[in-house]
Amino acid sequence: MRVLVIHGPNLNLLGEREPEVYGSKTLTQIDAEIAGLAEQLGARVDCVQHNSEGAIVDALHASRATHDAVVINPGAYTHYSYAIADAIAAIRIPVVEVHLSNVAAREAFRAHSVVAPVCVGTVAGFGTGSYLLALRAAVEIPIK
Amino acid sequence: MRVLVIHGPNLNLLGEREPEVYGSKTLTQIDAEIAGLAEQLGARVDCVQHNSEGAIVDALHASRATHDAVVINPGAYTHYSYAIADAIAAIRIPVVEVHLSNVAAREAFRAHSVVAPVCVGTVAGFGTGSYLLALRAAVEIPIK
Amino acid sequence: MRVLVIHGPNLNLLGEREPEVYGSKTLTQIDAEIAGLAEQLGARVDCVQHNSEGAIVDALHASRATHDAVVINPGAYTHYSYAIADAIAAIRIPVVEVHLSNVAAREAFRAHSVVAPVCVGTVAGFGTGSYLLALRAAVEIPIK
Amino acid sequence: MRVLVIHGPNLNLLGEREPEVYGSKTLTQIDAEIAGLAEQLGARVDCVQHNSEGAIVDALHASRATHDAVVINPGAYTHYSYAIADAIAAIRIPVVEVHLSNVAAREAFRAHSVVAPVCVGTVAGFGTGSYLLALRAAVEIPIK
Amino acid sequence: MRVLVIHGPNLNLLGEREPEVYGSKTLTQIDAEIAGLAEQLGARVDCVQHNSEGAIVDALHASRATHDAVVINPGAYTHYSYAIADAIAAIRIPVVEVHLSNVAAREAFRAHSVVAPVCVGTVAGFGTGSYLLALRAAVEIPIK
Amino acid sequence: MRVLVIHGPNLNLLGEREPEVYGSKTLTQIDAEIAGLAEQLGARVDCVQHNSEGAIVDALHASRATHDAVVINPGAYTHYSYAIADAIAAIRIPVVEVHLSNVAAREAFRAHSVVAPVCVGTVAGFGTGSYLLALRAAVEIPIK
Amino acid sequence: MRVLVIHGPNLNLLGEREPEVYGSKTLTQIDAEIAGLAEQLGARVDCVQHNSEGAIVDALHASRATHDAVVINPGAYTHYSYAIADAIAAIRIPVVEVHLSNVAAREAFRAHSVVAPVCVGTVAGFGTGSYLLALRAAVEIPIK
Amino acid sequence: MRVLVIHGPNLNLLGEREPEVYGSKTLTQIDAEIAGLAEQLGARVDCVQHNSEGAIVDALHASRATHDAVVINPGAYTHYSYAIADAIAAIRIPVVEVHLSNVAAREAFRAHSVVAPVCVGTVAGFGTGSYLLALRAAVEIPIK
Amino acid sequence: MRVLVIHGPNLNLLGEREPEVYGSKTLTQIDAEIAGLAEQLGARVDCVQHNSEGAIVDALHASRATHDAVVINPGAYTHYSYAIADAIAAIRIPVVEVHLSNVAAREAFRAHSVVAPVCVGTVAGFGTGSYLLALRAAVEIPIK
Amino acid sequence: MRVLVIHGPNLNLLGEREPEVYGSKTLTQIDAEIAGLAEQLGARVDCVQHNSEGAIVDALHASRATHDAVVINPGAYTHYSYAIADAIAAIRIPVVEVHLSNVAAREAFRAHSVVAPVCVGTVAGFGTGSYLLALRAAVEIPIK
Amino acid sequence: MRVLVIHGPNLNLLGEREPEVYGSKTLTQIDAEIAGLAEQLGARVDCVQHNSEGAIVDALHASRATHDAVVINPGAYTHYSYAIADAIAAIRIPVVEVHLSNVAAREAFRAHSVVAPVCVGTVAGFGTGSYLLALRAAVEIPIK
Amino acid sequence: MRVLVIHGPNLNLLGEREPEVYGSKTLTQIDAEIAGLAEQLGARVDCVQHNSEGAIVDALHASRATHDAVVINPGAYTHYSYAIADAIAAIRIPVVEVHLSNVAAREAFRAHSVVAPVCVGTVAGFGTGSYLLALRAAVEIPIK
Repeated sequence: MRVLVIHGPNLNLLGEREPEVYGSKTLTQIDAEIAGLAEQLGARVDCVQHNSEGAIVDALHASRATHDAVVINPGAYTHYSYAIADAIAAIRIPVVEVHLSNVAAREAFRAHSVVAPVCVGTVAGFGTGSYLLALRAAVEIPIK
Repeated sequence: MRVLVIHGPNLNLLGEREPEVYGSKTLTQIDAEIAGLAEQLGARVDCVQHNSEGAIVDALHASRATHDAVVINPGAYTHYSYAIADAIAAIRIPVVEVHLSNVAAREAFRAHSVVAPVCVGTVAGFGTGSYLLALRAAVEIPIK
Repeated sequence: MRVLVIHGPNLNLLGEREPEVYGSKTLTQIDAEIAGLAEQLGARVDCVQHNSEGAIVDALHASRATHDAVVINPGAYTHYSYAIADAIAAIRIPVVEVHLSNVAAREAFRAHSVVAPVCVGTVAGFGTGSYLLALRAAVEIPIK
Repeated sequence: MRVLVIHGPNLNLLGEREPEVYGSKTLTQIDAEIAGLAEQLGARVDCVQHNSEGAIVDALHASRATHDAVVINPGAYTHYSYAIADAIAAIRIPVVEVHLSNVAAREAFRAHSVVAPVCVGTVAGFGTGSYLLALRAAVEIPIK
Repeated sequence: MRVLVIHGPNLNLLGEREPEVYGSKTLTQIDAEIAGLAEQLGARVDCVQHNSEGAIVDALHASRATHDAVVINPGAYTHYSYAIADAIAAIRIPVVEVHLSNVAAREAFRAHSVVAPVCVGTVAGFGTGSYLLALRAAVEIPIK
Repeated sequence: MRVLVIHGPNLNLLGEREPEVYGSKTLTQIDAEIAGLAEQLGARVDCVQHNSEGAIVDALHASRATHDAVVINPGAYTHYSYAIADAIAAIRIPVVEVHLSNVAAREAFRAHSVVAPVCVGTVAGFGTGSYLLALRAAVEIPIK
Repeated sequence: MRVLVIHGPNLNLLGEREPEVYGSKTLTQIDAEIAGLAEQLGARVDCVQHNSEGAIVDALHASRATHDAVVINPGAYTHYSYAIADAIAAIRIPVVEVHLSNVAAREAFRAHSVVAPVCVGTVAGFGTGSYLLALRAAVEIPIK
Repeated sequence: MRVLVIHGPNLNLLGEREPEVYGSKTLTQIDAEIAGLAEQLGARVDCVQHNSEGAIVDALHASRATHDAVVINPGAYTHYSYAIADAIAAIRIPVVEVHLSNVAAREAFRAHSVVAPVCVGTVAGFGTGSYLLALRAAVEIPIK
Repeated sequence: MRVLVIHGPNLNLLGEREPEVYGSKTLTQIDAEIAGLAEQLGARVDCVQHNSEGAIVDALHASRATHDAVVINPGAYTHYSYAIADAIAAIRIPVVEVHLSNVAAREAFRAHSVVAPVCVGTVAGFGTGSYLLALRAAVEIPIK
Repeated sequence: MRVLVIHGPNLNLLGEREPEVYGSKTLTQIDAEIAGLAEQLGARVDCVQHNSEGAIVDALHASRATHDAVVINPGAYTHYSYAIADAIAAIRIPVVEVHLSNVAAREAFRAHSVVAPVCVGTVAGFGTGSYLLALRAAVEIPIK
Repeated sequence: MRVLVIHGPNLNLLGEREPEVYGSKTLTQIDAEIAGLAEQLGARVDCVQHNSEGAIVDALHASRATHDAVVINPGAYTHYSYAIADAIAAIRIPVVEVHLSNVAAREAFRAHSVVAPVCVGTVAGFGTGSYLLALRAAVEIPIK
Repeated sequence: MRVLVIHGPNLNLLGEREPEVYGSKTLTQIDAEIAGLAEQLGARVDCVQHNSEGAIVDALHASRATHDAVVINPGAYTHYSYAIADAIAAIRIPVVEVHLSNVAAREAFRAHSVVAPVCVGTVAGFGTGSYLLALRAAVEIPIK
């Protein structure tokens, strides 16, 4: 089982960026936690981060040849990138949507995800734990 | 760690009701899976099901004296019960929102949750797995 | 042919409540007219009235073991109870929606029914006659 | 008791047009069923079909001198013809709105009827049965 | 100066139709009043009435060869007939919009005119007087 | 017959202000034309201009003791002054709304009048002619 | 003069629930203050609390035989319970709407009350004082 | 305790203006009732009436030096005067919003108050009684 | 291959009507260009023009017996005629939507086509060329 | 170069009013800073403050004879005063819109300016600095 | 005549991606068909594909020096990329919008194109044929 | 004081692109004017231009190590790039939003900025002057 984790725009600033919203862990620390759980679950995981919408589309396209599932935190693109949504619908491997914060409790524009309808499911609000739960979802749960 | 699982309206028909959407497991089977994971995690879990909005409000109220966290699938009440949302905000223990199906991929009215803003987080789209991930969230992840 | 007639909230006040809108017959009189037509059609009919949304969901659930069709006047729940709509979709017997008054000619919120899309059809505006026509629909017309 | 049945635009194609939505009976067959029930009810019925909005307005105007009630299926005009609605309001005989399919369960634009507020009532969703129930409504039920 | 007066749908029922809204004069009486004023103003006036949208489009087209101005009461078409609006924009003679009643004080849908933006101006709310004022507007006032 | 003409905000700049929209006549010239027609109609007319919403409310209040009808061009207040609308509804003499330009053909916000529903009627689009027609409406046409 | 005070959902948690919004008094303390004022006004007051929408409808129905007026704080049901609104409209005794907090200053959904149009009036924002003022309104002020 | 009562636009016409909505008492009579209650409560009250938005803003500004609380009926300005709302937010003394009629039961635009979010609370629907209750609120209830 | 070209309302005025929008060619000239291309493609083409919505519905109905495809410019009906849309859906031959101008660049109401969802495809913005491209689409491209 | 600075409603309370939003400088201090910069730029500046919408319209009208440019902070009128917007459009000298706070970051209604489209440009969010930048804009930058 | 064809995001997956919507041809095959027609028309065509919005903007900028027209399928960017729309408006060569599928018949968000208003015209719904028709439009039809 | 100026998409075409909207200066000329003022103010300025949203996010991220403030003209991204807005919120240095044209006076979509709420302030409408004023804002005005 190979899983690709895609971190979207601005997530490279984690730990530094609005820690009261996103927590104080850096992306490197989060990736280490994900890798730890992956090892425990017998899965292989690769983590990438992109600020560019086109680069995320490219990464999704490439994943279909190299991975069995994708865990994606599309950051702000969640709310308007139909290009990323189309890419998720186009590749044939399951994709799980993840958010660190409880997006429903923040600004109104964050309550709507254009990506959610083409993902398998969503995990939001548990900080780093959101990634760990999503990894379990991708690895442990039979996805139709 | 004691967790209360609240199943909302119509979930007593699981296994029988629209299996192409909700799967073929009965609620009893799901509760058994939840209990199994709880035991494995060293937690105690109680599961209840209510079709009545008022009964769900009552159950949330009562939980604050008897449990440390709540996992709730509010069913259709997700989309309009501000009474349940107020109850979640009123009790002081963490509440995790769960959905079997990917609600974002269904009818438009299911894309909006009035309950999500007052929950800790949400897990949706993984069938029974949604409950198991939510239980882990409640038990394993430090919630502020 | 066994038909369950469910009267929703506030219909127990019929005859007393705003007679210029709902007419001067009591619910007992209406139930007697319904029973009279049922006998004439060779059908058995049971009539219940509930003010509670949860009780209506329960009644719908129970009906699938005891009746062949349901005639329901959801009263004000027509306009927001997705829980009742989900219950109608979940049971496998045909359900006919009924309204005493012409809801389209009243307040704006009454023009939209969240229940209608999951019913077989709707009869509205004919006073007690709406129930009689709906009973005929349930008994006489082959419903797919 | 003389009743005019007006079939609106595209209903001349019944039996041929999208039979999964509108059934496989032709308009001639439906008119025969209506006539059969009318005879049984001791009423006289005339059936006309028009694709033109203006022709339907004309038919409604003429009916006030020749009929006691109208049963109308305005087809697509249901959703935007304020001219037909004004004609119904202008004549002084009762008009019953009819739809073959359950319009509430189809495209969003079909959920709103500009004609309903000026009709006595509505019957929708029972195929040919909708016409038969509407005819009964016009003939049997005392309309204020 | 030749002026064409076009009465739209349902105006043939004037005097009979909802007299509390539209007054008790018949269309024949109104046309006589219009003709009387025209004579007094030294203008020639022709009055037609059509229930069909297409016929009104045709009448507008024809008027450009035979009249110098048009006074039109588009009735219910006021609120949705972009075809009539396009016809008014297409012909090169001035068109004045008229309404018997104060449409702004009635149902919400009557507050918006799709025809007004392509007319020279509007007179509404003065009963038969609306036509007389509009005729004066067409005859007496220099329209750019 | 005494008629008060109220010119609303910015109309004191007429002749100077956007002449391509409002024409090149000054307010003094317009008032002279109005006075000329009034004399011809055997009526007495007084013209005032106010930029302040409160002053217009005051003028309307005062008019009920001194005039038989009001002709008002509320300028930009047309679109949001519920205070002026309430004043028109409160006094018991007929009020006619007037606009120089065809407001329906300009910015979207000008298509809605909060004042129109409480006036007797509206004349718009005929330049100075709008005032003259409105004066005739107030003087010549029997207003209920 | 007998007055029924109905406390809606979650109000049983008063004193414990979000005290920065709802204050630190318990419902028992509030009921005692209400009873004190009632005695002072020579009125008899009964206080009940329900979390269930159906139970509130039942309580309203019952009140028409036992009380002369109702003071109701519908809690979250304020914003969507057309069933409670219909019950208020159906009974013939005056009903006063009450809110502890200034609902207009909180979340957007709390700015709209579906219950207000069928109540006599509303008092909101004065904490426990809202109940006391509403009791005075019910007892002291002649309500048409 | 000194309280300023501000009556907004058109309230000077009370007793004369639409008595079926606003009652038959004049503003002088209402002010006398208010003064009577103030005396009974040991408070000093001043009453002013203004039709001009700017004058109401001025009165609010001045009140902060001369009064301890304000009771305001903003009339139609309730629904759009952000200038008055800003003035209320800018002064530091408590302001209570008052309406004679039940504004929620009237035209749609009256259901929204731009002033309410910056007031302490609202009393509406009790005729003159609304002012008396608001005065009590200002004098008797400890406002944070 | 037989193709029916239907020109909708006001297109008979082409060449005369707003030439800056629609060009200076007459309908006769356009029909000649279409016929020329048809001959070149080995197809037979018939061109009709109707101002009446009902006549266009009739023409669509008739075409299913006489033609293999339809090219239609519904003019203003594009934006509201669900009757024409239903007719297109009802007949079983492919229909191509055509517009002379780039409707997306004009008034807001022209940006929405109720007809497009039931057509095979759309060509807009190329003047007469739109018809020629649509004819090619109907003749040359295999339409599923 | 003569510039008129118009301060809108409530700005006379600056320094006292919500200092966390508007800062702690008084209007007198701000006017002194503006005068200082004007002197430095070789311009003459006059500052006025009005709470009344009508007075601001009057001041704009008067400015066209006495000043070369206007800097205006319309306060709350920014969001609804089409009368002020019309006045700005009517006078022929350039007008610059100014806001102390970043209005886009505050309540939703403050995100829309009805005045902006008729101004030359806008400066917002820099406290007193907004006025200084706007003065420079009026004096230093060639405005078409 | 040199034409640039720009394929937007996800179109590199053609043939593999949702073939029931987009057909089974690969982008290479489509480019070959386009090249074939170009040769036949005596034109030179270059085809590029980009997943990145910025790259598409760059390609549009570059084209103005190297090509005479652009055919663009903006994919999902069609619905939100004002940056691409601005680029199309900025370059001075004609741009034709193309869609493989009938976007009007799919999800609601696909019914609106932010790019269409600045293109010459649109071809949609004919599969690969859409490109061929658009190429003809660019090459054969005189574009103003 | 080091300031980064970021020019967004399509601004590289300045001088060539729609000069009636954006003026005839090239970006190089504008950058020279900015540099000139920076020198005069004793500040150091760097100017970059990017068409790619991701590149702008990257530039904002990098700036926090190298500059003290940012002046950004996000071009069309202003209206939908929540990714850029998140980047501005994430970095801790002040950012000033700039627009050459008066965006409020153009297409409706340009009236809303998703970036403004996270910037310090905005300057719009003064052509190149907007940049100069923004640079002053960044350098001269104490930003909290």
